[in-house]
Amino acid sequence: MDHRTQAVKIGQSWIGDGRFAVIAGPCAIESLEHFLEVSRFVKSRGAAFLRGGLFKLRTSPESFQGLGEVAYAIARKVCTETRLPLMAEITDPRQVDRLMDVVDCFQVGSRNMHNYELLKELGKIKKPILLKRGFAALVKEWILAAEYILKGGNEQVVLCERGIRTFETSTRNTLDLNSVAYIKSVSQLPVIVDPSHGTGLSSLVKPLSLAAAAVGADGIMIEVHPRPTEALSDGAQALTYEQFEELVDQLNPLLKALGREFTAV
Amino acid sequence: MDHRTQAVKIGQSWIGDGRFAVIAGPCAIESLEHFLEVSRFVKSRGAAFLRGGLFKLRTSPESFQGLGEVAYAIARKVCTETRLPLMAEITDPRQVDRLMDVVDCFQVGSRNMHNYELLKELGKIKKPILLKRGFAALVKEWILAAEYILKGGNEQVVLCERGIRTFETSTRNTLDLNSVAYIKSVSQLPVIVDPSHGTGLSSLVKPLSLAAAAVGADGIMIEVHPRPTEALSDGAQALTYEQFEELVDQLNPLLKALGREFTAV
Amino acid sequence: MDHRTQAVKIGQSWIGDGRFAVIAGPCAIESLEHFLEVSRFVKSRGAAFLRGGLFKLRTSPESFQGLGEVAYAIARKVCTETRLPLMAEITDPRQVDRLMDVVDCFQVGSRNMHNYELLKELGKIKKPILLKRGFAALVKEWILAAEYILKGGNEQVVLCERGIRTFETSTRNTLDLNSVAYIKSVSQLPVIVDPSHGTGLSSLVKPLSLAAAAVGADGIMIEVHPRPTEALSDGAQALTYEQFEELVDQLNPLLKALGREFTAV
Amino acid sequence: MDHRTQAVKIGQSWIGDGRFAVIAGPCAIESLEHFLEVSRFVKSRGAAFLRGGLFKLRTSPESFQGLGEVAYAIARKVCTETRLPLMAEITDPRQVDRLMDVVDCFQVGSRNMHNYELLKELGKIKKPILLKRGFAALVKEWILAAEYILKGGNEQVVLCERGIRTFETSTRNTLDLNSVAYIKSVSQLPVIVDPSHGTGLSSLVKPLSLAAAAVGADGIMIEVHPRPTEALSDGAQALTYEQFEELVDQLNPLLKALGREFTAV
Repeated sequence: MDHRTQAVKIGQSWIGDGRFAVIAGPCAIESLEHFLEVSRFVKSRGAAFLRGGLFKLRTSPESFQGLGEVAYAIARKVCTETRLPLMAEITDPRQVDRLMDVVDCFQVGSRNMHNYELLKELGKIKKPILLKRGFAALVKEWILAAEYILKGGNEQVVLCERGIRTFETSTRNTLDLNSVAYIKSVSQLPVIVDPSHGTGLSSLVKPLSLAAAAVGADGIMIEVHPRPTEALSDGAQALTYEQFEELVDQLNPLLKALGREFTAV
Repeated sequence: MDHRTQAVKIGQSWIGDGRFAVIAGPCAIESLEHFLEVSRFVKSRGAAFLRGGLFKLRTSPESFQGLGEVAYAIARKVCTETRLPLMAEITDPRQVDRLMDVVDCFQVGSRNMHNYELLKELGKIKKPILLKRGFAALVKEWILAAEYILKGGNEQVVLCERGIRTFETSTRNTLDLNSVAYIKSVSQLPVIVDPSHGTGLSSLVKPLSLAAAAVGADGIMIEVHPRPTEALSDGAQALTYEQFEELVDQLNPLLKALGREFTAV
Repeated sequence: MDHRTQAVKIGQSWIGDGRFAVIAGPCAIESLEHFLEVSRFVKSRGAAFLRGGLFKLRTSPESFQGLGEVAYAIARKVCTETRLPLMAEITDPRQVDRLMDVVDCFQVGSRNMHNYELLKELGKIKKPILLKRGFAALVKEWILAAEYILKGGNEQVVLCERGIRTFETSTRNTLDLNSVAYIKSVSQLPVIVDPSHGTGLSSLVKPLSLAAAAVGADGIMIEVHPRPTEALSDGAQALTYEQFEELVDQLNPLLKALGREFTAV
Repeated sequence: MDHRTQAVKIGQSWIGDGRFAVIAGPCAIESLEHFLEVSRFVKSRGAAFLRGGLFKLRTSPESFQGLGEVAYAIARKVCTETRLPLMAEITDPRQVDRLMDVVDCFQVGSRNMHNYELLKELGKIKKPILLKRGFAALVKEWILAAEYILKGGNEQVVLCERGIRTFETSTRNTLDLNSVAYIKSVSQLPVIVDPSHGTGLSSLVKPLSLAAAAVGADGIMIEVHPRPTEALSDGAQALTYEQFEELVDQLNPLLKALGREFTAV
């Protein structure tokens, strides 16, 4: 753990202060009941931050695109009730105003890492930004994308490694943990890892989460769903409650051995 | 040439009608004198369409970002004077209204191919769209990105292969001419090729342009600059006037042998 | 065409002398009747060199591995009868002696481009070598692999671009025609193109062969099979007789337009 | 740790029995004094196996190619003295006989993973094989390459992930730890990780070694050199003695937390 990391405050908790942040929740917000149930569960097992998509960027215009504005009220209710901050994706500079009160940390997804107009807009606001790596972005380009935000005056940037596109097809992406260690040696920005997208296979999420902790990441972002086969998006990579519990149980002694602990709520 | 191609009208000329379209101009509009001079030259040598960036998407926020709004008036003057239509990049859904009267064909750049909010906005208007391939996009994803525009009601879409990101480093990108032949076999959309970005080296632009014609592309998009070493962006891949002239001279007999001709102005 | 290219003599014909070499034949030699029939046909339509695998390198040990030694006699009969030289793959330094009288040009396949022990052995002999690009080899590494042969004293090396491995899945490989133009600018070695492996789809072989000619390649290597669906290997990319005939018919005017002609038998 | 893993015995120690194997030594054997010193040191700090190249496969024929036969006697002396088994690369089927008494485990390097003639030869002998992943090999192809050995009757195969070639350039390769977890779910073969080649940067070797342990690998292979800047090959990725010591010290509590221990000598 490199002590130069510049921690970022999201809600009442920090990412990058040496502790290990667990961000969990469904791929997309599907309904109030669904999001509330998942959020309560992941909080009870150690998650300090929620994830949950309002809009989903999908390769095909025919795929489920997220609930959009309908999800705003759901998101606020769940955050109020669980007292956990929400990270959710923003996909358009025109959404900034509307989402300012809905979301505690704006996530820039992999497909938008090179969307510089969006990045510039996010540089103007006072709200933490989670900047996912473009799936074909050089580490150098990823850091320069963060510069678009930092240069605008917003210094609350957290990076997220989520796998890159390679020739390999057995996994959805190739999770590049080299990048985490490399960034720790050249940048002060906190870096978390998304093993759900990074592998695309729920059976690989646990071992790669442990690896993320061992390599020095500041946290992980995990997709959880009560019934993954019924998920409206990305079911193949979502953990069941049982799998999430097992993951946290195994992370616990590993973090202790590394001299670290979970981010407290 | 596959006769099922659905031609798209830009200004008074067509792309995809069997003829070979030459789109040429500088990477970015640098000044009125500069853009006018280049445009007159490329028109005199056979270009039927102009290219010229208003905004430039750059990896680093410190690099030249284009003249922006200052370039609008320049663009109109040059198009009026040369009577050639202009293709220029749009980078933000909020630019649509302002650019409607400035640009004859909106180009969606490689970094924005996955920017679905922008694509949806372009689906609502009546203006041809040049959709460049994302530098790490599967052909399948590229066609689905076009679907975002088509599904909105705008059927005037031209695809542009501009090279993909691979492990190879001797050229800036790997121009994927397989994709042109493949798309001809599965889609009705016209496809042009950008060998300037596809190679990144001016010395390779001519042979790859000839290859683009031979493989069945509907045209090429070429960067030309009177003094490439002084260009504000992408000078390494810009052709000099002399090189552009030589390219057109060699394309001429090749197209005849293929039973084709240049798109007339 | 770069006049510095150092032509290589194979049998009684040259590759790299400005003319366009057509090398054709089946993926693997399947029987005497089969190889003789294909060879006669491709010769009658303009091929100046034969291809035909004795051994086939296959990803799975369960796949057809070629006839091996049984094919030696077949190969000699067909070459004698057609008076065309044979290019065939060598996969082991221990095969050199036995194959010296069977094969007119040793082909080093893509999987063996980095097999330096084999390359060193081929540097010691007097026999032309066709060095295919490794499917993940940088152009720079490919040229250095040729150096292993040249440095040993054997200067008869022809390079063959056969597609590289990328993220794209619609085609078997991504044919990198940039590499052909690039090599022409830095090396004296002749370069041919293999659009059969480079695309993996018979329907794309013709357009990419035309592109190979236009980009300046010294020839093409094409898989032909009387009944591709019955081929023991790589049937999806083999041309039928009719398709091969059509390819040659369209190459003819294109080469004339480029000021070139086919290599004569 | 998947208990189905089929352990392989090398010398008197096992790989794949649940314990964590540390294989260490120089990239290449440079002299008796050098190899003996490094070997004694790594043994004193917990390495149970030695690595040390006899032949080095180098991209350029002008680079240092290893001591070759001169290194045989050195290797035997050092193994006798330290009583550690040696893993070293074999690059040619003709070397098998000569190396049988020199090497305790034959390593097939990344460039030779597709060299099926070599694999077939190694299937005929009774000697453990360390099969490195080809730098552009699909996991599926890697497992099929192991099948070439297994099918011949030699069941002592250990896999080694050593990074794949991607577009990323900040590290020499992209270490694919997904592959380790994936193979554990589909194969019984032990899998170790080579973070030296997998990152190419000595500063990243420690964090990626910890990650390899956390993801479930059966061991690591590490390059160590007393003075990396003077190494005849791959100095940039070699650990100093001090760095190796620090790595082992940090692995120790991590393994305990995972319920594992180092392979004893």
